[in-house]
Amino acid sequence: MRIGILGGGQLAAMMAGAGLPLGLEFVFFDPLADACARRYGELRVGDWASAAGGLLDDCDRLTCDFENVPATVLEQLAAGRPVRPGAQALATAQDRLIEKRLLRELDIAVPEFFAVDRRPDLLAALEQIGLPAVLKTRRLGYDGRGQAVLRCREDLEPAWARLGGQALIVEQWVDFRHECAQTAVRAADGAIRFYPPSWTVHENGILKLALAPAPIEPALVEAARSMIERLMVRLDYVGCLTLELFATDAGLLANEFAPRVHNSAHWTIEGACTSQFENHLRAVVDWPLGDPAARGQALMINWIGHLPAAGPWLAIDGVRWHDYGKAPRPGRKLGHATLVATDPVQFAERLNRVRDLLGDQWSAVLDQLPATTA
Amino acid sequence: MRIGILGGGQLAAMMAGAGLPLGLEFVFFDPLADACARRYGELRVGDWASAAGGLLDDCDRLTCDFENVPATVLEQLAAGRPVRPGAQALATAQDRLIEKRLLRELDIAVPEFFAVDRRPDLLAALEQIGLPAVLKTRRLGYDGRGQAVLRCREDLEPAWARLGGQALIVEQWVDFRHECAQTAVRAADGAIRFYPPSWTVHENGILKLALAPAPIEPALVEAARSMIERLMVRLDYVGCLTLELFATDAGLLANEFAPRVHNSAHWTIEGACTSQFENHLRAVVDWPLGDPAARGQALMINWIGHLPAAGPWLAIDGVRWHDYGKAPRPGRKLGHATLVATDPVQFAERLNRVRDLLGDQWSAVLDQLPATTA
Repeated sequence: MRIGILGGGQLAAMMAGAGLPLGLEFVFFDPLADACARRYGELRVGDWASAAGGLLDDCDRLTCDFENVPATVLEQLAAGRPVRPGAQALATAQDRLIEKRLLRELDIAVPEFFAVDRRPDLLAALEQIGLPAVLKTRRLGYDGRGQAVLRCREDLEPAWARLGGQALIVEQWVDFRHECAQTAVRAADGAIRFYPPSWTVHENGILKLALAPAPIEPALVEAARSMIERLMVRLDYVGCLTLELFATDAGLLANEFAPRVHNSAHWTIEGACTSQFENHLRAVVDWPLGDPAARGQALMINWIGHLPAAGPWLAIDGVRWHDYGKAPRPGRKLGHATLVATDPVQFAERLNRVRDLLGDQWSAVLDQLPATTA
Repeated sequence: MRIGILGGGQLAAMMAGAGLPLGLEFVFFDPLADACARRYGELRVGDWASAAGGLLDDCDRLTCDFENVPATVLEQLAAGRPVRPGAQALATAQDRLIEKRLLRELDIAVPEFFAVDRRPDLLAALEQIGLPAVLKTRRLGYDGRGQAVLRCREDLEPAWARLGGQALIVEQWVDFRHECAQTAVRAADGAIRFYPPSWTVHENGILKLALAPAPIEPALVEAARSMIERLMVRLDYVGCLTLELFATDAGLLANEFAPRVHNSAHWTIEGACTSQFENHLRAVVDWPLGDPAARGQALMINWIGHLPAAGPWLAIDGVRWHDYGKAPRPGRKLGHATLVATDPVQFAERLNRVRDLLGDQWSAVLDQLPATTA
């Protein structure tokens, strides 16, 4: 069985890392000839529009590592073989306005939001939701890009200068206790399995840490599962999906969803019985879904812009290393480490050693982990 | 860092599976163009004698997936870059007589043995050790090949007809309680870490099952560690090594050692904190060794000659699947499954489901597992 993956980044590479041992073959399609998944299989290069031009005709199933593959391309490709998840899921996630409207329609609580096409729309919206607020492009935003935080009236001018002229959305500022993420996998026959939620910490819009299982109340876990289940059923979703959430005094608010394997669940490679990458593939090829249960406690640390030398990290028992083989560039995800431990005492001991290696510049981020792990 | 692996079989593939996420690159060298590791990196094809002819000059480190690479080739290659483990370790393991003599010299108990060059040697040896006994070629035997069990006088003639004319060894028959295997990894700086021993079950000389950690007395675990440590120190060994052992009423007897990653430790991929494949590579590239501790209970099942369909197996939580991507052939190792569980109760439940799927033809093999897991 040959799987074609649209996008040849680290997500594609980690899918192949999970799927090659299962006997699956992989072909990657990417606009860039140096896409890092090329170490795991054949890389075919072309622009997204050309992906439906026959280059993937020898693939039995298709999936995406990149959520902004044009939905029209996916629709064309789906005429020839299963594309999982399908074009509708990606199209929805590609537009923040359509995404938020669907979430609201499914009774999944979201921060107050308004479409902003022209400047008066923004002013009218701010009348309703006040400041601070967040102005975002509807399309092609990720890792904090295409966003501006409006803290005071003075922020409007530069934000509009930067983002105005394209379809926008403005969202109410959320004063969250913490962020978390719920990942689940759904099979074509409707079976769903839920990963334990992860407690996520972002900096400048980019994920820095994911702790799992997140020590949150069972009622919140149930709420997150119910939300993601409604979403997956509505989209007739096949594969892994992650719903990013704000935990607030009033409960969970959905931020956005990713119709693919997701950074907040990289901990599942070593920290869960079946990784998100393997479960995504199992769903894509119609194999039974695997056990998503956690194996102890896990903390994932993202390496952004700079990848430390592996040696000192590997000297800590329980640290697992992932080097994506990418050239360093500011803001670029180059790799991650996952600390795993079987019990809270061992985890705390190991985390202390990790803390020492991370140094002071990480303390503001580490301080956002739950008090129970500090 | 580019690692060249001599031999492109499933062991090379699983090393690459462990090493690619660590940022290592892989090149495989094999006499066969369809060597299954080709799915994990570049495969260079040539006979063993040609391996030192420059084809691996772009590799920073070399290691073997095949223990019968000619030691002279490894010596030549070692002039240009570290070859780990080194030629001496492989040369020793390639000759059962040299191997057994070294073990005896290190006070590692072995079954009584005698060199057999001519037929009178065999008759003289049998005077000493009696019947049954096992006649083996000194070189190139594996998975039960190049061996003949001599149960009675009538077995001598056909055994000699098949094996005579090459350098042989005859060994005393060992009436073992069970077999087990001890794997350890040693770094160039002398650091050693020991995996929990596995309880192994063979059929016709081929490994069928490996259960780990083996439920054996702590004194035996200590004895196995002491044996493998002496061996590794003596060989100035770098990488993973497995010592295959017989557990007898009189304690442990060493059977043979494998100077490489080994089938009896495949369970470490999911069942240990750091797999044998990753730890072997860590030693090869001078990274700190990883935690070899078990994560619960694991049972590896080898697929010999026939690979079942994955679906029904993956429906059992805790079953992990490995398809080597090899064409089926009688006696060929095509893949393996590993059952993992966090505790004995969960393990027993899952093992019952595995037993049902394996069917009656496996019952004689399954009956050789320790009573505690039955």
